[in-house]
Amino acid sequence: MAAAAAGEGFRPLDEGILVEYIRATPALREVLGGRVGDGELTIKEVGDGNLNFVYIVLSPAGSVVIKQALPYVRCVGESWPMTKERAYFETLALREHGNLCPDHVPEVYHFDRTMSLMGMRYLKPPHIILRKGLIAGIEYPLLAEHMSEYIAKTLFFTSLLYHSTLEHRRAVAEFCGNVELCRLTEQVIFSDPYRVSQHNRWTSPFLDKDAEAIREDDELKLEIAGLKSMFCERAQALIHGDLHTGSIMVTSDSTQVIDPEFAFYGPMGYDIGALIGNLILAFFAQDGHANGENNREGGSHQVARGAPVVVTTMETGGSDRWCRWLSTSGTDEVHLNLLVVQQYKKWILKTIEDTWNLFHKKFLSLWNEHKDGPGEAYLFSIYDKSELFQRAQQIYMKDLFHDSLGFGAAKMIRRIVGIAHVEDFESIQDHPKRADCERQALGFAKMLLKQRRQFTTINEITAALESI
Amino acid sequence: MAAAAAGEGFRPLDEGILVEYIRATPALREVLGGRVGDGELTIKEVGDGNLNFVYIVLSPAGSVVIKQALPYVRCVGESWPMTKERAYFETLALREHGNLCPDHVPEVYHFDRTMSLMGMRYLKPPHIILRKGLIAGIEYPLLAEHMSEYIAKTLFFTSLLYHSTLEHRRAVAEFCGNVELCRLTEQVIFSDPYRVSQHNRWTSPFLDKDAEAIREDDELKLEIAGLKSMFCERAQALIHGDLHTGSIMVTSDSTQVIDPEFAFYGPMGYDIGALIGNLILAFFAQDGHANGENNREGGSHQVARGAPVVVTTMETGGSDRWCRWLSTSGTDEVHLNLLVVQQYKKWILKTIEDTWNLFHKKFLSLWNEHKDGPGEAYLFSIYDKSELFQRAQQIYMKDLFHDSLGFGAAKMIRRIVGIAHVEDFESIQDHPKRADCERQALGFAKMLLKQRRQFTTINEITAALESI
Repeated sequence: MAAAAAGEGFRPLDEGILVEYIRATPALREVLGGRVGDGELTIKEVGDGNLNFVYIVLSPAGSVVIKQALPYVRCVGESWPMTKERAYFETLALREHGNLCPDHVPEVYHFDRTMSLMGMRYLKPPHIILRKGLIAGIEYPLLAEHMSEYIAKTLFFTSLLYHSTLEHRRAVAEFCGNVELCRLTEQVIFSDPYRVSQHNRWTSPFLDKDAEAIREDDELKLEIAGLKSMFCERAQALIHGDLHTGSIMVTSDSTQVIDPEFAFYGPMGYDIGALIGNLILAFFAQDGHANGENNREGGSHQVARGAPVVVTTMETGGSDRWCRWLSTSGTDEVHLNLLVVQQYKKWILKTIEDTWNLFHKKFLSLWNEHKDGPGEAYLFSIYDKSELFQRAQQIYMKDLFHDSLGFGAAKMIRRIVGIAHVEDFESIQDHPKRADCERQALGFAKMLLKQRRQFTTINEITAALESI
Repeated sequence: MAAAAAGEGFRPLDEGILVEYIRATPALREVLGGRVGDGELTIKEVGDGNLNFVYIVLSPAGSVVIKQALPYVRCVGESWPMTKERAYFETLALREHGNLCPDHVPEVYHFDRTMSLMGMRYLKPPHIILRKGLIAGIEYPLLAEHMSEYIAKTLFFTSLLYHSTLEHRRAVAEFCGNVELCRLTEQVIFSDPYRVSQHNRWTSPFLDKDAEAIREDDELKLEIAGLKSMFCERAQALIHGDLHTGSIMVTSDSTQVIDPEFAFYGPMGYDIGALIGNLILAFFAQDGHANGENNREGGSHQVARGAPVVVTTMETGGSDRWCRWLSTSGTDEVHLNLLVVQQYKKWILKTIEDTWNLFHKKFLSLWNEHKDGPGEAYLFSIYDKSELFQRAQQIYMKDLFHDSLGFGAAKMIRRIVGIAHVEDFESIQDHPKRADCERQALGFAKMLLKQRRQFTTINEITAALESI
């Protein structure tokens, strides 16, 4: 099956093939300033080790990242097939979202469907993965501003608040093709954590009872059923589909969303929830970073690129490509504001609040601006009275808020008792302590999934977090 | 645009072309028993006058209905284009629903996409359109049994209660192509009745204030917005998309669902609501049939085919093809049980109750039977505990009930103040009386749309109807 999926003309990259490919591809030659001759290209493989090849290509006149999807899970081999067509949908989403929000989505220079190969902008150091920055206790003062803009624009403009139903259904149909990736989500987020599965794991033995309690919690199972159905049935907007803090690269003044290979037309709340849920996970992980070898000082460090990163938690990331860039390329300086944990937790809470509140404001602002536009959900000829229009918006945003909380909670739960964990917790070497952090997060997520409809503002959520 | 949509090889039918076509098409020759020679075919055009050509073709050894979709609204001409691709989706839906519920869906013998031409089973007399039967006061003792089976099977087996998400998304994508027909629904059901539109009409001047009140009713507009979004976004099952009482042909022991050209993956409640809403319209129209020239007697009539139909309301249908069959073909007898109006209204209420309650029972029975099947919404490995499973079902059915009531109410409203009216009311010649009936129906529909979540059983709905 894997071989069949690979199709005619597909060749897995190696350095030689890559150089040959670049030289034969005008769009890639151009972005490298034409300097693709012998000895002019520096190539580093920085793949994430699982699903894709990722190379950074530098020339004296430019740079590009080449990403190739493999038709199987790379670390397992051809026995675990995984459609390489995901590269096509990733490219589609990057381009669509990039058109809508160019400031926060890297440019795609080239795509080759046969080769499942994408050439995209190289996000230079000091860009790092947001999750690593959160683990390191780095403040990103523009994060909420940037991410609220990204989610507001990408979700609004691909929803029926802006789309005609004609273009909406056409786009929905196209992204139905990304079903295999959706199915992965369905399994690992909405199913496995709630049943015995060989893929599940948790900080054992400390969380054995907690994992079992999830599998025995009928209320939780009823709630997750509703969210799963919404995920499978509701084509509300073109969502990123995997918008956790590992899909965002940041510097102090840049925020870039990458890796939308799970993109499809789904519920908006799934993206918003992914982001907020992962910020809440970062919040709960902070206490685990407070002592021992991960102890943090107040103030800020300056880290020279080319030198190892001083924050020890960042060294635990293993093969992550972005982290390696930080430690190997260039000589610019990165400002890491390391705050003491309590301060930092407050900053995370503030960021959660700001992300939702700014999103809310920007989304409504877009809606107001385009209320007489092409969107067909709320025709201006029907909702022309200002008071009625505002009530419609309130209902829409309230539902979206509750959806977001629900999906956020689901994303938290799966990161603690499901297959894929987060470095926020994994980097806590002291297992009893890690389990304590995880148990708190799990308890909060369970409460949120069941009681989310009782919350009306994000500040009630952060107040509940603060009181823990 | 109309000409372009027609495409290469498309020819509008006339009798000569039709005969030639049949002779050249093995599947059609076969269903006519090979008797397609000179003088062997009897052809009657019975088109509905608007969108399609419809011919009944009889040979000494068989019969077939030939339906051709035109790339424009026939009565207006080429200036109002309407994709003839709807014939493709109608055929897909007839075949899919026919496989799932062969007893209540006529067989498709042949489809030609280029010609937008379908050959299907001829539903012989005494089949008539259910709406006409309801106007005539005919009881159909098996109607609820049959229709509950049709909706239970077609909806269950095309939902994620039975589908894997893989086959679901593939099918959803395919039916996204039927977007033009969906857009027609969106406009005439969810939009136009709530705004000033050149297409709207109502029994004027009697309902002028009522129509205006709809356009000024903020609560109603907020509710219809939610339903419209659900219609546009939620791919819950392959729905018929136009399941009113004019899409059902009946005899005392046969119930056949036709004309699913609006089929797509949408909310289940839309089909259920269409049926129930139109039964409620029939209920409210009965008082208008009680006096004057439409006065009914108790007992039953026998009407010979070939003779004009005696029930005067049936003569107002104009060009409806099924009605013509009744009056022109064959000599079988039709038993029309004409009940006095009050008795008949009770029967309608009973039919509404039975339709939902039997649907509820059959749908859950299918779900129970297949709870460990391919459906991926509620995996047995998660919902294996009987009490939990039942609670999940209760929640699902409660939501579906409320969706159905909402869509049913929306369908009622649009039939009174929107573009397309129902013969149930149109056949009431006394306009003040008709307006009274319509006003009552409108009032009930408005209440239902706004307060549907307060109802928990269908019997509460029929009790509310009975108390009017």
